[in-house]
This record gives sequence, structure tokens and C-alpha cells, in this order.
Amino acid sequence: MSKVLVFGHQNPDTDAIGAAIAFANLQQVLEVDAEAVALGTPSEETQFALDHFGLAAPRVIEAVKPETDTVMLVDHNEFQQSVSDIADVTVLAVVDHHRIANFETANPLYYRAEPVGCTSTIIYKLYQEYEAEIPQAIAGIMLSAIISDTLLFKSPTCTPEDINAAEKLADIAKVDLNSYGLEMLKAGTNLGDKSAAELLDLDAKSFPMGGKTVRIAQVNTVDLKEVFNRQQELEAAMVAENAAKGYDLFLLIATDILDSNSELLAVGAPLEVVETAFATTLTDNRAFLPGVVSRKKQVVPQLTVAFEG
Amino acid sequence: MSKVLVFGHQNPDTDAIGAAIAFANLQQVLEVDAEAVALGTPSEETQFALDHFGLAAPRVIEAVKPETDTVMLVDHNEFQQSVSDIADVTVLAVVDHHRIANFETANPLYYRAEPVGCTSTIIYKLYQEYEAEIPQAIAGIMLSAIISDTLLFKSPTCTPEDINAAEKLADIAKVDLNSYGLEMLKAGTNLGDKSAAELLDLDAKSFPMGGKTVRIAQVNTVDLKEVFNRQQELEAAMVAENAAKGYDLFLLIATDILDSNSELLAVGAPLEVVETAFATTLTDNRAFLPGVVSRKKQVVPQLTVAFEG
Repeated sequence: MSKVLVFGHQNPDTDAIGAAIAFANLQQVLEVDAEAVALGTPSEETQFALDHFGLAAPRVIEAVKPETDTVMLVDHNEFQQSVSDIADVTVLAVVDHHRIANFETANPLYYRAEPVGCTSTIIYKLYQEYEAEIPQAIAGIMLSAIISDTLLFKSPTCTPEDINAAEKLADIAKVDLNSYGLEMLKAGTNLGDKSAAELLDLDAKSFPMGGKTVRIAQVNTVDLKEVFNRQQELEAAMVAENAAKGYDLFLLIATDILDSNSELLAVGAPLEVVETAFATTLTDNRAFLPGVVSRKKQVVPQLTVAFEG
Repeated sequence: MSKVLVFGHQNPDTDAIGAAIAFANLQQVLEVDAEAVALGTPSEETQFALDHFGLAAPRVIEAVKPETDTVMLVDHNEFQQSVSDIADVTVLAVVDHHRIANFETANPLYYRAEPVGCTSTIIYKLYQEYEAEIPQAIAGIMLSAIISDTLLFKSPTCTPEDINAAEKLADIAKVDLNSYGLEMLKAGTNLGDKSAAELLDLDAKSFPMGGKTVRIAQVNTVDLKEVFNRQQELEAAMVAENAAKGYDLFLLIATDILDSNSELLAVGAPLEVVETAFATTLTDNRAFLPGVVSRKKQVVPQLTVAFEG
């Protein structure tokens, strides 16, 4: 079999990078000529994790065809989130924890999806099933991915399987789960040296809702005040983004990873739908959202319903 | 959780029925309120297997919504092969061994596909992973599905995992794999009491190739002569089908399950492409195809290439 490239989604987070490294390693154990690559450079959080366990960041690729015809995808399946020439190559395998959409193959493949909090949790199970040993550094990056995706188990996307996998992996990685986890999450909250535009682009997705286009950015922080000291600058950047990209409404969710609460900043229209969605009143374009940490489970569905109502 | 219906594809074969029964049983062990149903009545081969192991044929459904909102799919994923209202319900899980196409969900789900010869082989592995006991009758219908899909391991789609699962299941089902397997396959070759049109519809699929529509039917037999005694009647029915449905080319693959060879009957145009595809010459519209048993692996790709050339 020719060389196989293994990678996660564009704009990679710690799971996209970590799951690629871990799944490529498992494939190597199974005697597949696999290499972990990435569709972008690591975030500061991911770089912290890589450095901590002595791993190199995966090589960044723009396209597959110059190198090979065969790929394995982790932490995504939708073609628009994947490599540019994904439709021209053969997908041999997918390991993922998202919905399936805009994905199609010509041939049977290996596809493993489970509704858990993190792809690396599924890959941990695969190592068990193949009775393959997990090297310490690989365990460390898988653990980091689970901590990242579940915000140290505080996200409502977290399942008992994620916690179980993380505990086992922390033993292999020889780290204290909670202290390492907090340290890693904090490494991703260094927002001070970023421009407002960079901060809004760290982890942002667009959603069509009720005929409008809603942009929702999320940043993690250990100090909500630090983020909102820059409110004026952020609002100006959000107004500019709305105008440039045609967004109707821009929401910034700043999430306090220590307290597991978020503060919302909204620019655009209709703001009354935002108030309905979260049963709150915006003051100075802001609202406190107690207990909200997951965009996927605690923001998008509520907004979708409010737009439809 | 509300009731979950578990079913295979339309025009069900032994794997579509058997995998539904086996996966629904596993879900019941996992305390899910699951029921195996079907999108059609069993073939004679499948009915033989059900009778042999004392199982009732699954109830036939036309739609899901009148009963529940949640389903699990086995042995298929493409919506056009599924229940009529598949797009209106939630797919909780899929277990399959086909390519993925025309399949989409709104939410994360459990999806397990492997490139093996039979869905029931994957379900056998799931029983092992959950350390669930396989009842004798369930083992029997899973074994029957593997024998059916792999033509008793003679199909090039068969993998070592299929053979391993079948051997283990034969032990649990308390049957001799080879003698039971041949007996079951023969039960599906009773073509004498079927009209030519019925015979052509037993297992037929349409494929777009090079701007033409090609219909490829396959029947299993233990006596090729018996099939071709009716050649004139079959050709007349193929001409009528081509005219009625707009097919350009109709191929009937009659497969001798004892010798693992096939005889081809072709009606329509372009016949020279058929000759190119199989490096043969049609005599009286017929050609012998030694060693050919799999439409998926030994007929469709060869024809596709010949049409493109």
C-alpha cells in the first residue's frame, strides 16, 4: 500500500493534531506506512501540549495529491473542513465524533464514529481493541486532546468514556490530570498579544439561522475582565467583520475555564433574538451566561430555536 | 429513550435481515428498546435460514414516523436504499460494509463501517467487544448472512475476518459450516417457479456508465443449463425491461455456486463494450466468465473501465 496521510480538520485544535498523531502511530503499529500531518499550525494550547511531551508539530500540508492518493481523516468528515483536494483521493478510514455530512466515498472504508466528547477517546478504545501499547508521549497528547475538547470534563459534551480514557492516559503519560489540564488550558488563554481580529478568528464558525448568517467566536480565558477591558476594540473589529464578510450577527463567547461560565458580546442584529435565546437582557451589548461552556450544545441550538420562533 | 427500529436495506437479502435481528438483539442486551424490522419480505434463501434456526421473519414496515423517531441502520447507509421517511427521523447508529454516500445526520452518531464481506461479521466483533453472549439462533442467522454475502467464502469480497467469524458462529449455532452453507445457498436457487421478469428482479441494480444506463441482474444456481433453457423467454423479458425502464444494456449474471463460475447473458447495446470488459466474444448473446462470482468486484469495475475507454 502506498503512503497514507493522517490529518484532522482545517484550523486545527488539540484534538485534530493529537488524534492525527495517535492514529498514525496506531497505523504504524499495524504496519501501515502512515504519517500524521496537519492542515494548519498548532495553537498555543496545542504547542504547549506538544512541547510538554516532547513531540514535534505535524508537517503542514496544502494538498494530498502531490504526495499520495490515500488518506485517513480524524476529528472531521465534512469535505469543506478537510484538505483542498479531498474529493480526488481515497479515504481509507475516518475516526470522528461529529455528525456526518457532505462526505462520500466510491468504495467501502473503515469508519468509526461515536457520540463522545473527543476523537482521542475513540482512538484510546482502538488501541485497547488492537491490544497495542500506547507510548508515553502519545498518551500525553491524547490526554491533552480530551482535556481540550471537554474543558477538563466540564463541557456537557463530555461522557463517562472520555473521563475513563483520560484517567488511563494520565497514568501512562505520568502527569497529574487536573494540574496538567489546567496548566494546558491556561496556555491557550494568552490573548494579550493578539489583535482583536486575531482573537475573533482563533475559534470561529459561521451558521445560517433563520435566513441570517451568524458568526460565533469562542475564546477561553482565566480572566473575563482581561477580555472585556478590550470591549471597544473588539466591537469595532466585529462591526468590520460583519461588513466585510456579510455576517448579520457576530457573537463572541468568552469562557472562563476556571469557573465554567461565559460572558457574551453581541454585535449586529437581531439582538432581541439573542436575548430570547438565553433568557437574558443585554447590557452594553453583553450578558453573563452562567454554566455555559459549549458552543455546540449550549449556544447554537438555543439560538437556532430562537431564530425559528 | 423511545423505541428504536433496526433494519437493513430495501429488497432485503440475508445480511439485511440477519444483521438487523442480530444488532437489535445486541441493543436489547445493552438495554435499548430495539426491535428488528425489515423493508421487505425474506427471499427463499433467507426464509430457509430463519426456519432452520426457528426465527420469525421481522415485521415489514413502510415508514418509521408513525411508530417512533429513532432508527439504527444495518447493511446500508444511502438514503435511497432506506425507508421512505429516513430523512425525517434520527439515525442513532449505522453498522455497514458499503461505501458511504447520500448519508447525512444533524447530530453525532455511532457509525461503524469496515471493508469486510458482510455486516454480520462486524456485528460478531461488536458482540465480542461488549462481551455479550450470542444466542444459538442469532449465531445461526449471522452465519447465514456471512455465507450468503461471501458465497461460502468464494467471493473476492470475503476477508479472513469473515471466515473467522463464520467458523466461530457455526460452533455456537451447532451446524456444519459447509454442508449447512451449501444447503442454504441452494434454497435460494429455486428459479423454476419464477417468471422471467421475477427472476430478473430478484437481485438487480442499475448503474450509470459512460452516459448509458446499465442494468445488472444476478441469480445464483446449481445448474446453469436450467437457467439457459429459458434463454429466449429471458431475452424477451430483458428487451421489455429495457424499453419500459429506459435501460440501454441489460446483463444477467447467472452464477454457479458449486463451481464458482458465471454465465453472462447480454441484451441491448453496446455489446462490444461487454466483450471488451470481459475480454471475451459473445456467442448467441452469451459468454462464460470463469471464476466470476461478485458483481461488485468482478463485473461493475470492469464494465465501468470499458465504458470509459
